[in-house]
Amino acid sequence: EVTRDVDEELIQKFISEVDNMEIQENLRELTKVPHMATTAGDEQTVQYLLKRWQDPETGLDQAWREEYLVYLSFPDPKTPNKVTVESPTGVVLYTAREKEKVYGLDPEDPEVVQPYAAYAPAGHPKSDHLVCKLCQTSSPPRLGRLVYANQGTPSDYAHLNQTVNLTGTIAITRYGGAGRAQKAINAAPYGVVGVLVYTDPLDINDGKMSDTNETYPNSWYMPPSGVERGSFNTHFGDMLTPYLAAKENTYRIPQANITGIPPIPTQPIGFEDAYALICQLGGESAPPEWQGAFNCSYRYGGPGFRPDSTFKDSEVKLDIYNRGEIKNSSNVMGVIKGSIEPDRYVIYGNHRDSWVHGAIDPSSGTSVMLEVTRVLGRMVKQGKWRPRRSIIFGSWGAEEFGLIGSTEYTEEYYSKLSERSVAYINVDIAVFANATLRASGSPSAQSVILKASKQVKTPGSDSISVYDNWIRYFNRTSPTYGVIPNVGFLTGAGSDYAGFIHFLGVTSMDISYTYDRSKTSARIYPAYHTAYDTFDYSSRFIDPGFTSHQTVARTAGNVLMRLADSLLLPFNCSDYAETLEGYLQKALELYREGLAAHKISIEPLQTAVSRFRSAAAKLEEVIRDLDLANETPLKVRRINDQLMLLDRAFLDPFAFPDKYGFRHVIWASSKAGQPTFPGLADAYSRAASSELGRDWEEAHRQLSLLSQAILGAAHTLGDVI
Amino acid sequence: EVTRDVDEELIQKFISEVDNMEIQENLRELTKVPHMATTAGDEQTVQYLLKRWQDPETGLDQAWREEYLVYLSFPDPKTPNKVTVESPTGVVLYTAREKEKVYGLDPEDPEVVQPYAAYAPAGHPKSDHLVCKLCQTSSPPRLGRLVYANQGTPSDYAHLNQTVNLTGTIAITRYGGAGRAQKAINAAPYGVVGVLVYTDPLDINDGKMSDTNETYPNSWYMPPSGVERGSFNTHFGDMLTPYLAAKENTYRIPQANITGIPPIPTQPIGFEDAYALICQLGGESAPPEWQGAFNCSYRYGGPGFRPDSTFKDSEVKLDIYNRGEIKNSSNVMGVIKGSIEPDRYVIYGNHRDSWVHGAIDPSSGTSVMLEVTRVLGRMVKQGKWRPRRSIIFGSWGAEEFGLIGSTEYTEEYYSKLSERSVAYINVDIAVFANATLRASGSPSAQSVILKASKQVKTPGSDSISVYDNWIRYFNRTSPTYGVIPNVGFLTGAGSDYAGFIHFLGVTSMDISYTYDRSKTSARIYPAYHTAYDTFDYSSRFIDPGFTSHQTVARTAGNVLMRLADSLLLPFNCSDYAETLEGYLQKALELYREGLAAHKISIEPLQTAVSRFRSAAAKLEEVIRDLDLANETPLKVRRINDQLMLLDRAFLDPFAFPDKYGFRHVIWASSKAGQPTFPGLADAYSRAASSELGRDWEEAHRQLSLLSQAILGAAHTLGDVI
Ligand SMILES: [Ca+2]
Ligand SMILES: [Ca+2]
Ligand SMILES: [Zn+2]
Ligand SMILES: [Zn+2]
Ligand SMILES: [Zn+2]
Ligand SMILES: [Zn+2]
Repeated sequence: EVTRDVDEELIQKFISEVDNMEIQENLRELTKVPHMATTAGDEQTVQYLLKRWQDPETGLDQAWREEYLVYLSFPDPKTPNKVTVESPTGVVLYTAREKEKVYGLDPEDPEVVQPYAAYAPAGHPKSDHLVCKLCQTSSPPRLGRLVYANQGTPSDYAHLNQTVNLTGTIAITRYGGAGRAQKAINAAPYGVVGVLVYTDPLDINDGKMSDTNETYPNSWYMPPSGVERGSFNTHFGDMLTPYLAAKENTYRIPQANITGIPPIPTQPIGFEDAYALICQLGGESAPPEWQGAFNCSYRYGGPGFRPDSTFKDSEVKLDIYNRGEIKNSSNVMGVIKGSIEPDRYVIYGNHRDSWVHGAIDPSSGTSVMLEVTRVLGRMVKQGKWRPRRSIIFGSWGAEEFGLIGSTEYTEEYYSKLSERSVAYINVDIAVFANATLRASGSPSAQSVILKASKQVKTPGSDSISVYDNWIRYFNRTSPTYGVIPNVGFLTGAGSDYAGFIHFLGVTSMDISYTYDRSKTSARIYPAYHTAYDTFDYSSRFIDPGFTSHQTVARTAGNVLMRLADSLLLPFNCSDYAETLEGYLQKALELYREGLAAHKISIEPLQTAVSRFRSAAAKLEEVIRDLDLANETPLKVRRINDQLMLLDRAFLDPFAFPDKYGFRHVIWASSKAGQPTFPGLADAYSRAASSELGRDWEEAHRQLSLLSQAILGAAHTLGDVI
Repeated sequence: EVTRDVDEELIQKFISEVDNMEIQENLRELTKVPHMATTAGDEQTVQYLLKRWQDPETGLDQAWREEYLVYLSFPDPKTPNKVTVESPTGVVLYTAREKEKVYGLDPEDPEVVQPYAAYAPAGHPKSDHLVCKLCQTSSPPRLGRLVYANQGTPSDYAHLNQTVNLTGTIAITRYGGAGRAQKAINAAPYGVVGVLVYTDPLDINDGKMSDTNETYPNSWYMPPSGVERGSFNTHFGDMLTPYLAAKENTYRIPQANITGIPPIPTQPIGFEDAYALICQLGGESAPPEWQGAFNCSYRYGGPGFRPDSTFKDSEVKLDIYNRGEIKNSSNVMGVIKGSIEPDRYVIYGNHRDSWVHGAIDPSSGTSVMLEVTRVLGRMVKQGKWRPRRSIIFGSWGAEEFGLIGSTEYTEEYYSKLSERSVAYINVDIAVFANATLRASGSPSAQSVILKASKQVKTPGSDSISVYDNWIRYFNRTSPTYGVIPNVGFLTGAGSDYAGFIHFLGVTSMDISYTYDRSKTSARIYPAYHTAYDTFDYSSRFIDPGFTSHQTVARTAGNVLMRLADSLLLPFNCSDYAETLEGYLQKALELYREGLAAHKISIEPLQTAVSRFRSAAAKLEEVIRDLDLANETPLKVRRINDQLMLLDRAFLDPFAFPDKYGFRHVIWASSKAGQPTFPGLADAYSRAASSELGRDWEEAHRQLSLLSQAILGAAHTLGDVI
């Protein structure tokens, strides 16, 4: 029993039992009503998850809810946010839509939340709100005049500011290029008093704009009134309780101390409203890279509208009534207890909350998770299977507001999760599109993902494996394996894996089905975070028949079973070495000379990576030489602990003290945009641009702590004594 | 084999083989020459340790050295530090001794370092050095005038400042009451320009002063010229490389950024010189608590000397030539590999460096460690024994400068040490005096220390156990056990356990033999950190026959063998609960009301402690119900991991971000001086005195992170799933 290994027959049985129609019905149930975090609709999904996971025939060993009191931000349903154009005499010339247009037979659902920028402050930008730090003239500003600021990046505003006095202006920006909150954070220092954001049809609709035939419900493209909602934040987790689980009496920082959210009122609007505003702007023509899909020239703004426009001399008024509220958000947790190593956890999760109906985000993932638990749960209930290790399922709350439920969970259970977690599998949006698998993860998890993908077939009758299909869409040349599918890295905080990989250092992966990039250049599926992300949308345009959902369930479930059942953990530490060597190569190219010019030797980093490689090679050799069926349980456990703790060894809580939760020195987020070590890249780029002594010192510190972390990881893999 | 438990016969064999005469010879060898860190004498001890641990008959499996480039501070042998009294016309009226008086037949050893305050800056305090922050008058200061500032605590200076204008003065202080560096750090804001420190005979010599008969070489008391050297620091570890192992290319902070060291020149002197200065001081009489053992009234200073004194109107001049140097310091490491769980480490260590000959500090501990390794090493070499777990021995370098060698070791090997360390045993000064055992440690280690102490006899023929003797000197009433010997807590950073318990969260203990407090009120043994801490001193006055050394070796070695060999780790988590409950009780008494008045509920802390108690009780029950010989190895390992990781669960790297290395929220150092949770105590005391909102917020934050850490520890002990 103690030397039991993964059972390939059971995996085949799992694959064959995963049912696309079950997934479809899960999705139908999950998307009946809007289920924004902490609303009544959210509570319905809590109840549904509990019912499913407590089902006596297909449920788990146990399921329960865990609650946190977290800081959210909502518009005021009684006083909706408004965007209007007002003439100098106070006449309202134009009012942007308050809600998205409803197509089809359903009446307008009052539970659909008005599009808004969560965490953007309430306000009515006027002269007395002006706080201008970079104002260049003392002439009286023209208030509320609109300007077009492209994507709202720092360089966009810097460029715009060369032509237009931004003091007192409202900036309209398009999604992309900068994080949601950054568009306002970047704007405020120039005296901009409010920000609008919209999705340009160029970026989401392959240019398509007309709702008479080109957009949903006639295609997957976003209708003119569609608006991407979102959390306008920078850090993840509940903003008031960094590093503390948000319970009733937990210390909360003053709201004034929150960083990383818009300092000025901000509102997202549909592209039909953006069209009406942008195409009437005055001023000079913006450069070609700033142009979108509208049939007009995108101009900077005078500031304000063209003299020959009906909006001439008019202001854009934002009346924003968002307010912060501390609300009770639930995670739903379920477990299958491990038989032999119950103190080792394989965790599988996805968020449950959506912005509206959330058929794709997140309910595609939840309907897949429910199918995985149905098949595994039944095997357990029937006594046909019990995993070697424990499996924990998490249905996280309030992800849309900043990965809150999963992060609070990692804070509350930090000690036992970091002691015992083998891996975390995240399946949020399971199906962006039905072309190919996409996966990201820690390099040591590459091999198990590839293995599973070879055992699962793509949808349809052509009998090609997920692996063989995948490699056509995303591939890379590995020095070790040649051409293989490209498993990406988890360098950001895009979904609930963030707390696991960055904060806990648990080997994590994120799995989905996605686009054929030759067929669309949409930033993401066009209904993302809009009221159009519905069962109808998904079943007609994303995955008719739900076979891509089924494929993701089979692949992710296969990975899950291997992680839970393999006698020896299916992690390959030499693949980690390959990644570090690639990062090192890039760092040498980019930074060696510049560092040397400041008397900083990059040699410790080279030494560290080379020691890591040796330790990994030696451990792989030990593993190859194992006679698994006859090894003592404690020897296997020892090697498994080395593999399990590998990602943990890369943590340094003081590496990035200002970036909440980012402790993993290989995968932390980075601004530098280079495929190399993030802390070094950011510090180097800052130092090279400032040439300040203290910035070079920070580059040196980053180099030292990075080298030490990699050496530490090598120690974890090396001979134990 | 895998269910092999501790072998009581082998422990008896170990006890019987520990030989006091071997310890004596170890000590003779170790103390031949002064062996201050990184000197030639230090290198001799490195070679000796390596020789012993690599001995084919009594050595360990392996031994090697590990080197760090660390920042030390030394006086200039060519230009010794000087303290003089200079008349207004520049005549030198008095010169303090530069070196301690040599007694006996040995010629003066040039390797004896001049007494100095390590890390105090070089300088010659004069008017142009004045930096006065709290000066109260603008009248020209009287420079270099001496004042007596008692122990140099903040309240001492505040009190003195009410009577004397401290601008431009030199403060003479006595050891005790405040940390070495604090006496100067507390002084500088008042405009004090230099600090002298001495040991008052009241505090170290039970008032004895005469070297004709009362002091060494006639007794254990400090001779009049004896001077306690020391590191004048606040934080531990190499000062230039916090959190980074100090290697060749490691990033080092600018020396100007070092915190916690004297901002003004500081020099320690003997009490004969202090007598000459203090008894001639003018000004008012100091209060009774400021009086020492000199046969004169201790006065504040006019500032300066009495008008009727020969030193009338004279200045005290400090000429300090200390300088910082980056030097190569070695740890010597040795291991006995574990047979069944080699990936579990029991670590035993002591520093090797001394200030001078260091017969007691640290060589009493090193000679004990060498006897432990001789007996265990022989058992291993003869094939009679191999521990279940690996044993690592550490002979640390540069402890006297701030626990540097051990701390760099914990930084360099952070990942594997925190993954695998079961316990750390520290035996620094093994024998302060020959009256009784003294032990401090994590509460879960209490039981194994008590058990070992029952199996070892006290020196002499009266056949009483160490336990029965100990309980007469130090005892407490435990709610669980009634009257038992009092095992203290490791709340400070007094020796090399600091990096292990505070930074790594490894269950640690510190063991020694010590005083009969009814016989002396000496702060510590009087030769501490002086040139008189010699083999002769130890063998005649501290432990003639070395039987107390032998007793410590037997007790600490017994603990070591139990930790290394027990099938189930001999840690009692319910004893931890008892300690937390005691701390909680005190916190409720002291803080509940005051917190409630600021709307901060202490209830989460109560809940956390009570959950910890339940989890501990339940785990103890599981342990009681075990049928050890027949349990599966993985089940025993699971429980051992829970016990091993218990102290780790109390770590929070952001709890005390400004206190290097202190991450353990139960044992961190504290200023509040209350037997309760340190972070809460300090934050509460600050808030209650300032009544600032942000200070109450910090108290709330401390309460929350403390409660969360205790809950986390409860999760570690609780059912694994
Ligand atoms: Ca939190
Ligand atoms: Ca260091
Ligand atoms: Zn999502
Ligand atoms: Zn989303
Ligand atoms: Zn010592
Ligand atoms: Zn010492």
